[in-house]
Amino acid sequence: MAEQKSPLLLAVQFAGERKSDSFSEAFTDRDVINLNDGTHHPEIFHGVKYAIVWKPDAKLFARLPDLEIIFSAGAGVDHILQSKDVPDLPIVRFVDPTLTTRMSEWVCLQCLSHLRQTKQYDASQSKQNWNERPQPEAKEITVGVMGLGILGQDAARKLKMLGFTVIGWSRTKKQIDGVECFDQSEIDTFLAHCHFVVGLLPLTPDTKGFYNRPLFLKLKSHPEIATPIFINGGRGGSQVETDIISCLEDGILGGVSLDVFEQEPLSLDSPLWSHPAAIITPHVAASSDATAISHHVNRQIQRYEAGEPLEHLVDRQIGY
Amino acid sequence: MAEQKSPLLLAVQFAGERKSDSFSEAFTDRDVINLNDGTHHPEIFHGVKYAIVWKPDAKLFARLPDLEIIFSAGAGVDHILQSKDVPDLPIVRFVDPTLTTRMSEWVCLQCLSHLRQTKQYDASQSKQNWNERPQPEAKEITVGVMGLGILGQDAARKLKMLGFTVIGWSRTKKQIDGVECFDQSEIDTFLAHCHFVVGLLPLTPDTKGFYNRPLFLKLKSHPEIATPIFINGGRGGSQVETDIISCLEDGILGGVSLDVFEQEPLSLDSPLWSHPAAIITPHVAASSDATAISHHVNRQIQRYEAGEPLEHLVDRQIGY
Repeated sequence: MAEQKSPLLLAVQFAGERKSDSFSEAFTDRDVINLNDGTHHPEIFHGVKYAIVWKPDAKLFARLPDLEIIFSAGAGVDHILQSKDVPDLPIVRFVDPTLTTRMSEWVCLQCLSHLRQTKQYDASQSKQNWNERPQPEAKEITVGVMGLGILGQDAARKLKMLGFTVIGWSRTKKQIDGVECFDQSEIDTFLAHCHFVVGLLPLTPDTKGFYNRPLFLKLKSHPEIATPIFINGGRGGSQVETDIISCLEDGILGGVSLDVFEQEPLSLDSPLWSHPAAIITPHVAASSDATAISHHVNRQIQRYEAGEPLEHLVDRQIGY
Repeated sequence: MAEQKSPLLLAVQFAGERKSDSFSEAFTDRDVINLNDGTHHPEIFHGVKYAIVWKPDAKLFARLPDLEIIFSAGAGVDHILQSKDVPDLPIVRFVDPTLTTRMSEWVCLQCLSHLRQTKQYDASQSKQNWNERPQPEAKEITVGVMGLGILGQDAARKLKMLGFTVIGWSRTKKQIDGVECFDQSEIDTFLAHCHFVVGLLPLTPDTKGFYNRPLFLKLKSHPEIATPIFINGGRGGSQVETDIISCLEDGILGGVSLDVFEQEPLSLDSPLWSHPAAIITPHVAASSDATAISHHVNRQIQRYEAGEPLEHLVDRQIGY
């Protein structure tokens, strides 16, 4: 008789009804315990080797004495590493074509919106104003992508295909066809070229408060459209919101698109909600799809149980 | 001594100051007469063989007895063919990578905006509402591109690269990698697949009033986002605006993006200006760039004077 397979603990909330059954459908050969299903759960989950987590409760790991692998429900893992009680176990990030595609959708949408002056044309529409604006084409705008992991590389490639001039920056230098890349030491040269900056950096001690007034002052303006533009699809902890607000007021920034914030949900008293040059989305740029996560985790558990190495492991030293 | 070269007549208005000198810079070897420069011009322009026109005045051609080639300042030529007095001369349409890139920017922006529920998230932002919406990814949405000339093919290719499922329709069947194409006889099958329709058809007797209520009724809805969506970057004469408005009211359409209108500028009393599901831009999707037009026309004149055939000639029988 086959050994009973370890259940999977699910400690994540998803938007949308159709997603609720994805995990049970994917894991036909093991139980899925949904921590958020509203039922009574034991204090200690004995025999649970695997957990999928998002912003785990400080006490969660103490309830999982037999845990062997921690799966992040997103591309980032800062929400796990912030916890002082995270055990010394392998952490697997979520990497999936769905997540990548969704982030690139959001990044391309934001870059096209600022290029094509959507905020300005929306304001004209609401005033019934038929008014053509001077309009550079995409190639006249340099978009600098900061963070060239799987998400950054895909966004850079798609922005280039849409016609933008695209450059990239990362801690260690990358090679991307048709995209000039810069490393840590070349940051000022990189920033001096950027009309738009797209932030896709992980949150680590090095990137905390990284997008600040001194950085925004180094960006480039275009004579015809509101620039420079700061777009953050990475982590809110990397940005200094008081600097973003003051730079929008001073005209040091021409506009922003922010999906992430220092505190989420964004505080009701933040001026960003109503600033005419700010596009705000509620951390939905690349929401993890339950079906995609369940397949990703299932694949990694199968590898693990077959004695193969796990993929997409987090390096705790560098923090991502 | 070289023969004096025929001047070029320019009968077009451009937005933006930096464009005004583009023509003089491009045509170093011949005079450029700018009909809209505010100076006094002769009644008859003797010796002018070439004219670049946009929505020409009914009397313009009578003033050009020596005209040999008519250049359209845009991709469409319906604005020329509508004139009863257009002489039987070659008409050259404007084809240029700049025009193509700009139209694809606009089309991709509109498709991404409806996919990512921009109108809904903008409304949430204005109410300081941090609210995640269920969100299909691009591949779950089928975008049907109607009109597969140079603009339609480029838009289809870029939409596909962004992740959408893309299909195409044209009078005669086209072949595009990764894009299922349909011809005139298969229109109902085509429409039944479309969550979004992108209109890039020329205006001809066949396409006048083409986008109407019966057509919108054949489109497909998606359970999670406002659909179906009608996006028109082609010609306003192809759409029936009273049908668009009633279909938005009835929920037969989930949203529209319109750059063109039956009458331009759009009348101040049109309900489209203020409809919450309508994105309106003032015929700027692919504004012709003066520098690009001047180079295109210069190239064609050089071919013509060297005895080579003109490119991008209009077929008056089919109307484009």
